Amino acid sequence: MVDCYQLLAANKIVSFQVPLGDENHVVTGLTPHYLEPMARSIPQSVTLGLVQMGCTPDPAENLQKAVAGVRDAAGRGAQIICLQELFRSQYFCQTEDHGNFALAEPIPGPSTEVLGPLAAELGVVIVASLFEKRAEGLYHNTAAVIDADGRYLGKYRKMHIPDDPQYYEKFYFTPGDLGFRSWDTRYGRIGVLVCWDQWYPEAARLTAMSGAQILFYPTAIGWLPAEKQEHGAQQQSAWETIQRSHSIANGVYVCAVNRVGHEGDPAGGIEFWGDSFVSDPGGRILVKAGAGEEVLVATCDLSKVNASRTHWPFLRDRRIDAYQDLTKRYLD
Amino acid sequence: MVDCYQLLAANKIVSFQVPLGDENHVVTGLTPHYLEPMARSIPQSVTLGLVQMGCTPDPAENLQKAVAGVRDAAGRGAQIICLQELFRSQYFCQTEDHGNFALAEPIPGPSTEVLGPLAAELGVVIVASLFEKRAEGLYHNTAAVIDADGRYLGKYRKMHIPDDPQYYEKFYFTPGDLGFRSWDTRYGRIGVLVCWDQWYPEAARLTAMSGAQILFYPTAIGWLPAEKQEHGAQQQSAWETIQRSHSIANGVYVCAVNRVGHEGDPAGGIEFWGDSFVSDPGGRILVKAGAGEEVLVATCDLSKVNASRTHWPFLRDRRIDAYQDLTKRYLD
Repeated sequence: MVDCYQLLAANKIVSFQVPLGDENHVVTGLTPHYLEPMARSIPQSVTLGLVQMGCTPDPAENLQKAVAGVRDAAGRGAQIICLQELFRSQYFCQTEDHGNFALAEPIPGPSTEVLGPLAAELGVVIVASLFEKRAEGLYHNTAAVIDADGRYLGKYRKMHIPDDPQYYEKFYFTPGDLGFRSWDTRYGRIGVLVCWDQWYPEAARLTAMSGAQILFYPTAIGWLPAEKQEHGAQQQSAWETIQRSHSIANGVYVCAVNRVGHEGDPAGGIEFWGDSFVSDPGGRILVKAGAGEEVLVATCDLSKVNASRTHWPFLRDRRIDAYQDLTKRYLD
Repeated sequence: MVDCYQLLAANKIVSFQVPLGDENHVVTGLTPHYLEPMARSIPQSVTLGLVQMGCTPDPAENLQKAVAGVRDAAGRGAQIICLQELFRSQYFCQTEDHGNFALAEPIPGPSTEVLGPLAAELGVVIVASLFEKRAEGLYHNTAAVIDADGRYLGKYRKMHIPDDPQYYEKFYFTPGDLGFRSWDTRYGRIGVLVCWDQWYPEAARLTAMSGAQILFYPTAIGWLPAEKQEHGAQQQSAWETIQRSHSIANGVYVCAVNRVGHEGDPAGGIEFWGDSFVSDPGGRILVKAGAGEEVLVATCDLSKVNASRTHWPFLRDRRIDAYQDLTKRYLD
């Protein structure tokens, strides 16, 4: 949120910004009739699209479905569209199978070669989570960011890699080495984190500190059917809560996109819970999907990032002189 | 949750701990018959007491009410009892008034001299938030920790100090200089943070990393009546959400104790919202107060700290090699 004045001088509109709350700002040397106060808060509206889908064993089919989802979202006004984690395949990490490395691709590569032109055609930003083959025997869980002109902006490599029953990601993915990043896109500055990252306030903080107004979390999370009865509600609530907390702590929008459907062993496997959502900088849920395939859109007012951060000024008061031990494993 | 073995040697029981999961732990030099495996998971039950109260302008009266609350909680089985932020007075930070410095006291001092013997009498740990006078012109918002034998264990000085309309704390309180701490008490290892700290994942993380199984948050938060209609629900939800997120991210219990009642200008002031609660390491709310005076008790199984952290092993995967920028203000 900025206070703006426009100056009509020498036949040119010159605009500049002064900090919010500086009610008595005086521009020396300008007579009052040159000053046209604009609205105090400039809404910077951006519409997000979330493509929540089920996947088949056929990567081509999944890509087709993702493209259809992007078109659907764009048709409903979405400007930044996020696909779920590893949308080109089923969630293969349920087993440790060397054959699954064949699913990987370079980035940029085949998927971005389809999504880039699509982004340009529709004028939308696309966040695409892909299985990256970086070199022989070196693979990452990576998200590509494509700007609305189709240009590949860069990638984020998942930094926190889980390894739990049926989520054997440490077998497949080398932990990311690009750090926490954000990018200026046509519609706003965005950061991308992937699934397990969502449990780490450090990741959200660092991405927000790099300027992101929206944090995207492509995700593949679900219930192990044997646990669902006892722990399912708590797990899902914790997942939503921790991500809403990133909105709150950092004054940013969070956009989480999860897959749906049952995959794997029919007697076990994983039941992906969907529930994709967008939360605003106050932690309010703006839109939320159910457990089925769904394309969501949500309009976000990016001026709320500054409004939230000035009203609840958490960034102002961080005790950066006392945080050095965050780089330790434990304080024992 | 610990794996314990007891050694019967030289007529003494010697117990020691080995990390969970170290199934094949071998103790050199001991023959097998000396090893008696105990239950893998030892429930370590502790009952918390939360004294949520309204305050009058009379510090003596507030102390009396707090003592009554501690007795009530102890009578219902509470073993670690937390009082709300600055329970000895009304929330004086609504104005910047030099006269309010007279409310401060040394720590240890008059309040701990009452609460120490009370703790010993009842066999309870007490967490007491007090206005500390450290030296002439040097004041802190501090919490004292008193063990169940009445011994003063130490203090935490609020690290993050707010300054917002009607919360003019930067006028009164020098930011804490003792860092983030935890203490072994008779009933568990606890950490204490105070109010505004609750918005900082860094504070919760560092306190948990110092070993705390339970994070206590004495608090004084409420609505500005003019804002309540529009923002009240969001504010309260954000407050609960961010603290539940500390439970989730760190696998610890969180115990937040807030005040109730309206204080200050009758046409404005602050309506403290109560809503004190305890959340478990999965983020579930175990008990929750309403908007009136209330003494809550909640029994916590401390073995769930390890159970939670091994099932959702977030501490295992922290990217401490990539967190160094958390000590920066912003990445610009």
